[in-house]
Amino acid sequence: MSNGAMSSGPMSNGQSSAGPIRVACCQVSLAVGDTPGNLARLRAAVTRAADAGARIVVLPELANTGYMFEDLAELRAAAEPLDGASVRQWEALARELDLVIVAGFAEAGDDGLVYNSAVLVDKTGLRARYRKAHLWDREKDNLFSAGSDAPPVVDTAFGRIGVLICYDLEFPEWVRSAALEGAELLCCPVNWPLYPRPAGERPTEIVKVQAGATVNRMFIAAADRAGQERGQDWLGGSVIVDADGFPLTPISLGEETLVLATVDLAEARAKGISDRNDVHADRRPALYTRLTQH
Amino acid sequence: MSNGAMSSGPMSNGQSSAGPIRVACCQVSLAVGDTPGNLARLRAAVTRAADAGARIVVLPELANTGYMFEDLAELRAAAEPLDGASVRQWEALARELDLVIVAGFAEAGDDGLVYNSAVLVDKTGLRARYRKAHLWDREKDNLFSAGSDAPPVVDTAFGRIGVLICYDLEFPEWVRSAALEGAELLCCPVNWPLYPRPAGERPTEIVKVQAGATVNRMFIAAADRAGQERGQDWLGGSVIVDADGFPLTPISLGEETLVLATVDLAEARAKGISDRNDVHADRRPALYTRLTQH
Repeated sequence: MSNGAMSSGPMSNGQSSAGPIRVACCQVSLAVGDTPGNLARLRAAVTRAADAGARIVVLPELANTGYMFEDLAELRAAAEPLDGASVRQWEALARELDLVIVAGFAEAGDDGLVYNSAVLVDKTGLRARYRKAHLWDREKDNLFSAGSDAPPVVDTAFGRIGVLICYDLEFPEWVRSAALEGAELLCCPVNWPLYPRPAGERPTEIVKVQAGATVNRMFIAAADRAGQERGQDWLGGSVIVDADGFPLTPISLGEETLVLATVDLAEARAKGISDRNDVHADRRPALYTRLTQH
Repeated sequence: MSNGAMSSGPMSNGQSSAGPIRVACCQVSLAVGDTPGNLARLRAAVTRAADAGARIVVLPELANTGYMFEDLAELRAAAEPLDGASVRQWEALARELDLVIVAGFAEAGDDGLVYNSAVLVDKTGLRARYRKAHLWDREKDNLFSAGSDAPPVVDTAFGRIGVLICYDLEFPEWVRSAALEGAELLCCPVNWPLYPRPAGERPTEIVKVQAGATVNRMFIAAADRAGQERGQDWLGGSVIVDADGFPLTPISLGEETLVLATVDLAEARAKGISDRNDVHADRRPALYTRLTQH
């Protein structure tokens, strides 16, 4: 490694130098159709994370509403505008507890469409809203509309943070886009369905998070669901992965849990991996033209 | 899954329908400066793979020469043109044993430069030559020149096969490029140095192979080195991964071994992963413009 200057030199581009901080993923059980109950559970989980010293807290995808909607009518009835009760609760929690919170919610857009969205809020209020760009299965089926904005990457008091949602993580192009904008930590609300896998194998959802972290030297925190909802079992695979691609947290599949890790996001500003290699500078952008054509 | 038609329908675009076939990675120990010895070892390993029923055989990166060159003079003395003794040996083996062989070699280019290259040969002779586009560490230091051609993807009697070399695999853009050209199996000569990792963790080189396979629904076979060379320990992490991203072979780190798996490459032509999802069709190429600009 030959990039001490990158990690210890003066900060630029608004990058923070917060030192080690605690990150939490709240792996909770939620129920479709019970937004007040979901919000109460999330408030309790966020408070517990703050009590444990977390400064950055990630909640699951569609945390306010649950996921297994019968149809668009049920989704529309549950969706909220950006200034609705759910985002207001998270803003209030971020202000009271001095947190960055990244949370997924069902968004009733000004344009009449419904989006699978996430917000990043801090003690100053709303910092970013992101709409999932890669929709999963029934989400496409007359439920959600896909977003087309780039992943947000936000300078916060605790580091430079990017946001993606669930299936977005399976497109390395999209993970790279956030990383190239300087995300030190990618916060990802997810709802990972439980699928069979060979004995002894880690779920590939987690493998993809690990790979996305190491090829970009970026931390990734994914907050998943626990339990079951209308017959759908969730993986419960919340994980925080370091910039080398290794999990910092036990893989406690399925249970309701608070996943906590202490990270030094400065490590993600040092992209060097050998005396002569840098995971971003070694890219050959002029050769990647197939990716924007196909 | 709703893509039976993709895997059972008539073949198009020259795609093969070979049915299940055996793939082998020859994890051998090599010595820099001993090309005749290396070629003898490789011949024995390829013959053993063919005896075990393999039809596609992958050899390591720089298999003819070894890796740990002192300087450009030593490399130049060992490098061979495309029609040199090493490629001729592999062509002869492919012809005699009816194999596809993918092998790395140090190439003395017509332009006077030296490349870290690989060939794909079959019983008809040379089918493709590829020059590594992403160079690792000392390779950059007045040893090798980087290639700038896209990864080759070749229709063979045993399936549609792409070729990348070692550090290329750490650029998901490059893996995707081969997959978008229809590679069903990506054959990768590698020389993975041994690095420390947390107890119980799989090497991230293998994690990246798994992720590249699953996000593209493509098989990947990586042939690594065993042993040590001028003080450099090799990981010995050869692996064959299926289109779901799971290893089909035991991870036998470090030893000289023949890694063998039976694969049905037709599975890699079915890109669907749910009733409404397809890992390639779900991409949003118009949104990925950052990747060719940065």
